[in-house]
Amino acid sequence: MKLGYLGPEGSYSYTAAKYYAPNHMLVGMKTFKEIITAVEEGKLEEGILPIENSTEGAVTQVMDALMKTETSKIQGELILRVRHNLLSIGEAIEEINYVLSHPQALEQCREFFAVNYPHMTLIPCESSSTACQIAKEKGRQYAAIANSWAGENNGLKTLCKDIQDNVNNQTRFIIIGKESILPTGKDKTSIAFSFHDDYPGSLYSILKEFAEEKINLTRIESRPAKIELGKYIFYIDFQGHQKDTRCQGVLNRIEKNINKLKVFGSYPIGRIY
Amino acid sequence: MKLGYLGPEGSYSYTAAKYYAPNHMLVGMKTFKEIITAVEEGKLEEGILPIENSTEGAVTQVMDALMKTETSKIQGELILRVRHNLLSIGEAIEEINYVLSHPQALEQCREFFAVNYPHMTLIPCESSSTACQIAKEKGRQYAAIANSWAGENNGLKTLCKDIQDNVNNQTRFIIIGKESILPTGKDKTSIAFSFHDDYPGSLYSILKEFAEEKINLTRIESRPAKIELGKYIFYIDFQGHQKDTRCQGVLNRIEKNINKLKVFGSYPIGRIY
Repeated sequence: MKLGYLGPEGSYSYTAAKYYAPNHMLVGMKTFKEIITAVEEGKLEEGILPIENSTEGAVTQVMDALMKTETSKIQGELILRVRHNLLSIGEAIEEINYVLSHPQALEQCREFFAVNYPHMTLIPCESSSTACQIAKEKGRQYAAIANSWAGENNGLKTLCKDIQDNVNNQTRFIIIGKESILPTGKDKTSIAFSFHDDYPGSLYSILKEFAEEKINLTRIESRPAKIELGKYIFYIDFQGHQKDTRCQGVLNRIEKNINKLKVFGSYPIGRIY
Repeated sequence: MKLGYLGPEGSYSYTAAKYYAPNHMLVGMKTFKEIITAVEEGKLEEGILPIENSTEGAVTQVMDALMKTETSKIQGELILRVRHNLLSIGEAIEEINYVLSHPQALEQCREFFAVNYPHMTLIPCESSSTACQIAKEKGRQYAAIANSWAGENNGLKTLCKDIQDNVNNQTRFIIIGKESILPTGKDKTSIAFSFHDDYPGSLYSILKEFAEEKINLTRIESRPAKIELGKYIFYIDFQGHQKDTRCQGVLNRIEKNINKLKVFGSYPIGRIY
C-alpha cells in the first residue's frame, strides 16, 4: 500500500502518516494537488492531507481541491497535536544561546522563551530540518526547535519536551482513497453543497433537517463558489454514517433544496495523537 | 480626515480607498494590524481593509484581527472588481513579446494570453508596480499587467483593457472607524459569536431566529476559536440595521444562547466599482 504525504520526510504530514499507517510505503510529494491527482489516477492507494488547524483554520487549498475529486473518497481522519521540542548536540540547556527554527515554530514557542530563557536569541530559518542541521554543525551553544523525529534523525538530544505555548494546537488530517468504509457505530460524514438561489433561511432549512434528527454537526465552513461575491459552497461534517437510516433520510431530504450535494465519504471518528 | 490603507500607492486597497473617499488624506501602511491599531488609538479616523474575495475567500488575518478591536466599528463597505490592463510604452500590441506582472495577476490572465497571444512569454515579478517600471525601461517589446492607475502613473499606454479571465473576480472591502452609522433603509450588520458548549443544533437555533424574521444572511463564515479543534467563532453578515426593531429583537434573543456576541457595526450596503 502506498500512502502519499506532503514532504519532506519529518514534516507534520509525515508524522501523521506514520501514526495512521506505520507499515505503509510512504511517498513524499510536493503539493496537495499532486497527492490528490495520484490517488484519483490510481498511482497511490491513499493520500493524507491536512484539512484544518485549531489556530489557523481551514486549509483552503485542500478544501477547494477536494471539490474537484471524482473517484476518491474520505476514508479516515486523525488529529495530530503540534509538539515542539528543544534539541541540541550538547546536554546542558544553560549553554544554549541561539535557538533556530521555522518562523512559525519560533512564534508558537515565543512565550516559553520569554518566561524561561529570555537571554536566548531566536533565529528564523527555512525549515525545522534545516534548523536541526545547523544546530548540529554549530555545536553546544545552538539548539533547534523541531519534532522528536527530526531530532532523532539528526543525532540531537532532547533538552526540553512540549515547549509550544498552546498545548491545544492541533491539526486534523483526512485520508483519501477509493474504498467505501462501512459503518463502525462511531462515524463521521463530510459533505458539501451550494444553493441555486439564496433566500432568507436557505442554510437554515438544511441545518433544520440535521437538528430535527439530533445529528450533531462537528464543523461548518463556507468557501467562495468562485462565481461571484456572496455565492458560497458550504462544507459540513456531521456525526453518523451515510448508510445510517437517519443520516440517509436527511441527505435525501436536503438534496431537493440544494444545487449539488457532494458526499466526500463516511469514516470512523479519528483519534488524537 | 485620514484613511489608512495597505500600501504601496496604486495597490488594490489604494484604488478602493480612492473610490470610497476621493478627498480623504490617504495613509499607506504596512500591515492590516497596523491600520486597525492606528484607528483604535485615534491616530487615523478611518481604515479600509479587504475582508473577502470571490475566488480566494475570507481574508482570515483581517477577520481574526477584527475580533480584538475594542472601540472601532465597521462603518461601510464597497466592492472592487479586479481589473487588469495590458500596458506598454509602445502602441502596437503586435510588438509585445514579454509580459510582466505579479504571479497572481499573471495567473488571473493566463487564458487571455493562451487564446489570443500564445507566443508572449509571461514573466513573474515582485509587484505590478515593479512590472510597470521594468516595462517602461525595457521598451516596446515589453508590457506589464496592472490596473489603470499604475499605468497612468508610469507613463504607459493601455493596449488592452479588462484582460482578466474571470470578469466576476471581486474583492469586498470594509471601512472601520469610530462613528456609529444611522439606518439608511438599505443596511447590513456584521456580527460574530461562539457557543459555550456545542450541542446538536446550536448554530441552527441561531439561524432559526433570523429565518423566522425573514432576515437574509449575506455571509456566514467560521473561524477557529483557537482553543481546541472543533470550537469555532461564527461570523455572520445580515441585511438590516441593528437599530431596526426586527434585527434588535433577534440580537436580543440570540444573545441568551451564545457565549459572547460581538456586533462589528451596521452600515449602508456598498456599491460595486
